[in-house]
Amino acid sequence: MSDAVIRMAMVGGGPGSFIGPVHRMAAELDGRVRLVAGAFSRDEAKSKAAARGYGIDPARAHGDYRQMLAAEAARSDGAQFVAIVTPNHVHFPVAKAALEAGFSVLSDKPATATLEEAEELARVVADTGHLYGLTYTYTGYPLMREARAIVRRGDLGAVRKVVVEYSQGWLAQAVEKTENAQAAWRADPAQSGLGGCIGDIGVHAFNAAEFVSGLAVTRINADLNSVVPGRRLDDDCNILLRFGEDVPGVLVASQVAAGDRNGLRLRVYGAQGGLDWCHERPDVLTLNWLDRPTQTLHAAAPYLGPAGRGPARLPTGHPEGFIEAFANIYRDFATAIASGGGLGGTPVPTIQDGLRGMAFVARAVAANGAGWVQL
Amino acid sequence: MSDAVIRMAMVGGGPGSFIGPVHRMAAELDGRVRLVAGAFSRDEAKSKAAARGYGIDPARAHGDYRQMLAAEAARSDGAQFVAIVTPNHVHFPVAKAALEAGFSVLSDKPATATLEEAEELARVVADTGHLYGLTYTYTGYPLMREARAIVRRGDLGAVRKVVVEYSQGWLAQAVEKTENAQAAWRADPAQSGLGGCIGDIGVHAFNAAEFVSGLAVTRINADLNSVVPGRRLDDDCNILLRFGEDVPGVLVASQVAAGDRNGLRLRVYGAQGGLDWCHERPDVLTLNWLDRPTQTLHAAAPYLGPAGRGPARLPTGHPEGFIEAFANIYRDFATAIASGGGLGGTPVPTIQDGLRGMAFVARAVAANGAGWVQL
Amino acid sequence: MSDAVIRMAMVGGGPGSFIGPVHRMAAELDGRVRLVAGAFSRDEAKSKAAARGYGIDPARAHGDYRQMLAAEAARSDGAQFVAIVTPNHVHFPVAKAALEAGFSVLSDKPATATLEEAEELARVVADTGHLYGLTYTYTGYPLMREARAIVRRGDLGAVRKVVVEYSQGWLAQAVEKTENAQAAWRADPAQSGLGGCIGDIGVHAFNAAEFVSGLAVTRINADLNSVVPGRRLDDDCNILLRFGEDVPGVLVASQVAAGDRNGLRLRVYGAQGGLDWCHERPDVLTLNWLDRPTQTLHAAAPYLGPAGRGPARLPTGHPEGFIEAFANIYRDFATAIASGGGLGGTPVPTIQDGLRGMAFVARAVAANGAGWVQL
Amino acid sequence: MSDAVIRMAMVGGGPGSFIGPVHRMAAELDGRVRLVAGAFSRDEAKSKAAARGYGIDPARAHGDYRQMLAAEAARSDGAQFVAIVTPNHVHFPVAKAALEAGFSVLSDKPATATLEEAEELARVVADTGHLYGLTYTYTGYPLMREARAIVRRGDLGAVRKVVVEYSQGWLAQAVEKTENAQAAWRADPAQSGLGGCIGDIGVHAFNAAEFVSGLAVTRINADLNSVVPGRRLDDDCNILLRFGEDVPGVLVASQVAAGDRNGLRLRVYGAQGGLDWCHERPDVLTLNWLDRPTQTLHAAAPYLGPAGRGPARLPTGHPEGFIEAFANIYRDFATAIASGGGLGGTPVPTIQDGLRGMAFVARAVAANGAGWVQL
Repeated sequence: MSDAVIRMAMVGGGPGSFIGPVHRMAAELDGRVRLVAGAFSRDEAKSKAAARGYGIDPARAHGDYRQMLAAEAARSDGAQFVAIVTPNHVHFPVAKAALEAGFSVLSDKPATATLEEAEELARVVADTGHLYGLTYTYTGYPLMREARAIVRRGDLGAVRKVVVEYSQGWLAQAVEKTENAQAAWRADPAQSGLGGCIGDIGVHAFNAAEFVSGLAVTRINADLNSVVPGRRLDDDCNILLRFGEDVPGVLVASQVAAGDRNGLRLRVYGAQGGLDWCHERPDVLTLNWLDRPTQTLHAAAPYLGPAGRGPARLPTGHPEGFIEAFANIYRDFATAIASGGGLGGTPVPTIQDGLRGMAFVARAVAANGAGWVQL
Repeated sequence: MSDAVIRMAMVGGGPGSFIGPVHRMAAELDGRVRLVAGAFSRDEAKSKAAARGYGIDPARAHGDYRQMLAAEAARSDGAQFVAIVTPNHVHFPVAKAALEAGFSVLSDKPATATLEEAEELARVVADTGHLYGLTYTYTGYPLMREARAIVRRGDLGAVRKVVVEYSQGWLAQAVEKTENAQAAWRADPAQSGLGGCIGDIGVHAFNAAEFVSGLAVTRINADLNSVVPGRRLDDDCNILLRFGEDVPGVLVASQVAAGDRNGLRLRVYGAQGGLDWCHERPDVLTLNWLDRPTQTLHAAAPYLGPAGRGPARLPTGHPEGFIEAFANIYRDFATAIASGGGLGGTPVPTIQDGLRGMAFVARAVAANGAGWVQL
Repeated sequence: MSDAVIRMAMVGGGPGSFIGPVHRMAAELDGRVRLVAGAFSRDEAKSKAAARGYGIDPARAHGDYRQMLAAEAARSDGAQFVAIVTPNHVHFPVAKAALEAGFSVLSDKPATATLEEAEELARVVADTGHLYGLTYTYTGYPLMREARAIVRRGDLGAVRKVVVEYSQGWLAQAVEKTENAQAAWRADPAQSGLGGCIGDIGVHAFNAAEFVSGLAVTRINADLNSVVPGRRLDDDCNILLRFGEDVPGVLVASQVAAGDRNGLRLRVYGAQGGLDWCHERPDVLTLNWLDRPTQTLHAAAPYLGPAGRGPARLPTGHPEGFIEAFANIYRDFATAIASGGGLGGTPVPTIQDGLRGMAFVARAVAANGAGWVQL
Repeated sequence: MSDAVIRMAMVGGGPGSFIGPVHRMAAELDGRVRLVAGAFSRDEAKSKAAARGYGIDPARAHGDYRQMLAAEAARSDGAQFVAIVTPNHVHFPVAKAALEAGFSVLSDKPATATLEEAEELARVVADTGHLYGLTYTYTGYPLMREARAIVRRGDLGAVRKVVVEYSQGWLAQAVEKTENAQAAWRADPAQSGLGGCIGDIGVHAFNAAEFVSGLAVTRINADLNSVVPGRRLDDDCNILLRFGEDVPGVLVASQVAAGDRNGLRLRVYGAQGGLDWCHERPDVLTLNWLDRPTQTLHAAAPYLGPAGRGPARLPTGHPEGFIEAFANIYRDFATAIASGGGLGGTPVPTIQDGLRGMAFVARAVAANGAGWVQL
């Protein structure tokens, strides 16, 4: 293995996991990261079986993540960072343990299951000085990054309105009562945390809105619903927002929008024009203008700025997708490890973004139906 | 003129009017209605000039609408109904006078400038027994009617969520301070009524949501904003909705969404699937399903039901647009006059829809920022 | 009737006609033209019934078009021009008779049933000096006119390639053997002329390509097919083209493309970029560029040039469709009559366009399968 | 490395290569294949540098591919197959040498530079009995495979017409005279073979048409052009096709369609409906029907058949792109190696597809402008 390759351990991602294999593919896509160890399942046999599936040495697979961390820390060629891909309630203890054991951490979102955990984790990150990144996947899309750069350099004028939606339909029926493992843990407050839809996808929408607009949400007015009978967590949420002093916004998310697939859409309006990005077609970014023709920016096109063009692996017109977006985050994270620098100059979401997301979820759940509250 | 042709007078629609000529074109498109008289402007000379422009006898054009009503009422071949296309604050007095003078009325929306006027107008309609229709234009689109029929017959299952948007950008600058007559009256509370954006387009979105979903909005949580400095009325509004007992919804409208054109979009989700109609492409209606391929219904296609197919003037693939949608309302209204029946069996919006719209506007303005209130 | 209104007679358009009512709606849409007379059917009773349906005086409806021409010519308030909306084989004799009787003529396409007729008609037009226009409908779309202006002013650079398609599916079954009157005459060489698909829609595609590119087709290599068993005329045609000296092109048309609606699409590529217009969404025109973001031009937008913006009746975002495109041709034609000028400065297709279309059809049919031939 | 992992060597893909890294990413995406050796460049130092970039042992990188084949053949853990990613003229000698040295081969397209080479290669494949696959990338897209299955099971009825396009704009200027290495070899007949555009992308379109329609092209009528002055090979080609006995078709390809990106689009029409797939949005497949609403199939949706659903790595709504399509071919190829079976039951293109492609290119070039010829 080349010295330039960064070594990764994974916690979670065992049999039946959707997101574990995605993290593995994304991590290794560019040949910059290699999965070398893991605690893929609390069941040691399952963990070792997963290791074989991933093509790594079963000896480096453990049932207990603490044991894995200790073993890797003891090796001269041990993992350099830990990817966390477990259900939400395990994010915090694993991240804390890994950071304290000397590893950098790249965690799936949300950062933790509660706001208090996130606050504690922020302290651990600060104390240990290790890198902590969050895979808010959609920030990995090149045109989301281009969108952010466009807003930053003021092309749209001052931001005046933000509309963000995230619409899925896969929980339109009570699939958590069937064999659907993905649905089961998400619908269980003990594993998922306070929020259902809001924690699973609403927080992606929230992050996308702040990431691109460059503005912080300061007040919210939340309407969270459990539409499917018997569901204990929200499966639909609609939230009025205020960004900064007085910029209005709306967040509409649902997991019971029957027939919808994975419809994240973000619109940011400024005084001169608006941008529109939709995950259904991630390789185009639309700019509407007050007094000029609409522009469509295509991924990987030569006229894009470095934020949007830099991540491209293929010429324009050759679609990259979800795995590549994920891989962009991994690549930036690995580059930061290799360079010894921080995440500051990169678009990789940090514990601060994690904190904001957890605050948003906690506040929305607590103040559901109560009108406007501070965030 | 054939006996089958219904004779119309118009109030408003003089020089500089956008919507007056549209009403004329729509009314006459199918050869079922003919404009014969009008009070197109309060300035008699302008009114007569407008008459010439419309190709009608200037002798039947007046500066005072009461004079016009009297003159037409006195003729054996006088107008049979009055189309009202004035700024909002004149809708009520003209409608009342016309009904009381024995005419049916087809009014542009909103029905009146205040809720109190709408309530009084409803009494006048009931007392006189004449027809009163409202041109909520978007209800004239064949696929909006098809959408309503689809929801009604239960194809989507029970309705679970409604998302409606109406996004324009033409007021993103303070154009009301320029020569723009359209903007000027809309931005003036004395002419426009209580609401700005909410009264001009929010009410269209509200009506579309109720029209297609078949549900009544029972509670609202409104956020109305005046984004452009110095504007006295709202130019942006975002409203959480509750339909019936517990169906969540969202209404997002703006006239400062820079670069947007005339983006009305309605999504209605049921337990089995969702429908999606967007005015940017009015000739398609998309149905997403839990477990089947997405369907796209095309206007005028033979597989549509009578609600959607009936209005078609052209074979599928030959686009009809805004004027034709308007014309569908006129045609239905003329048919009701000709038949002597009421509007009950037709999709033409009535004073009841007008009342609901005015209640919505009044309540949203009054309870702006106050959290959830009853409608 | 105002003096500014131009009076029209119609030949064809009787009971069961699709295109007759469309011509009537289009002609009268802007209040500049009024239908006053006609020979709507060779059956006098049917002709008079049609007149009543159109709301005109049955006394001015005749079974014989020559009789109608004579009667109108004798009136001081007689028709000023004749619209021809019959099946193809009647276009020529009616046009000739009308021109020779002193009327201007606006004819549906194709100009005639044979090339020889078209050549004779061109002589009649020249000899009589009356206006002769052709309703190649698609040239009436504002964005087609904008497209032509864009090519003319060289924005795309020198034209290098033209791809034009026209795809319909309504003749995918042998509907001419059913009650379908539209299909029946089109499938009958005696009424339709030499070409089936090529004469009905291929010629529209051909005209669109020449209209926008500004180039003349000089050579063709035609493949005409009768796909549905038993059909006597072509129902599918694919033709390699050469424009001017050496610009390649392709024309693909079909009426057996099962499931397709009315898919005219034109792409013109120059050295610097390409334009793309599709009748499925006539209110957008896409410009792709070598080194800049794609642009989408929206109908009626303020940034359009006069060719594209001039015809708009509504603000941008309010769709106009097929009837309005037709009406744009009628409006221009009526303006030319009113002004006493010719069609030269207008985009209304003339007998020269008709001649080119007929030459194209005749040559393609004659040289079907024979490789490259001159046009 | 797990026993389940198939070991790959690569020829080509050195510094500056676009497609080499894509093959590497695609090969390794699913953890089923690992790159272990290569002759990445004829310059040994560059080859070893490339090895380091790929994260493999430089000792297994050679300048001479024959030397690499010998070295790998001598190892017990040597490569099991060879991926060929060189310019076209080297495909044949490498493939022949690799097969004769006992390796399976997965080659980029076209199979060879001439038809004679392809014929000889077919004999070598037959003689050696090793697997030979071709990465016609677009056959790796799940919805292309679904499309093929839909045609095969007769949903559309008998195929009646095929329209295939492949439109790029990157050669609209003479970039081969600049630093563009990709353009340089493609524009050089010595490296590219007989065809320019037709060999580079026309052959993809040809393959896609045969792959999905299940029909063989039997006759062609070709128009190949060199649009950019000074270019020695065609950069634009338009070809009339006949499939089987009498099914018409059209192939339109260009590399000078300024502003276009990578627009492969395939339409197959049957008696009952038509399918439409476009590489600009590879995750949807549209089905238009004679008498039913249009259907849109979404990648990874549960209602897809095994051909379309099987390859999905992610839930529906999570886009997979070009790399994943490539990876699907690699995965199927690796599975065939692991199982010891042939490619017969897989959708992986074989030498027979390579032969057809070369025959198409050779015949089109030879009979350019000559009208219809047999294929």
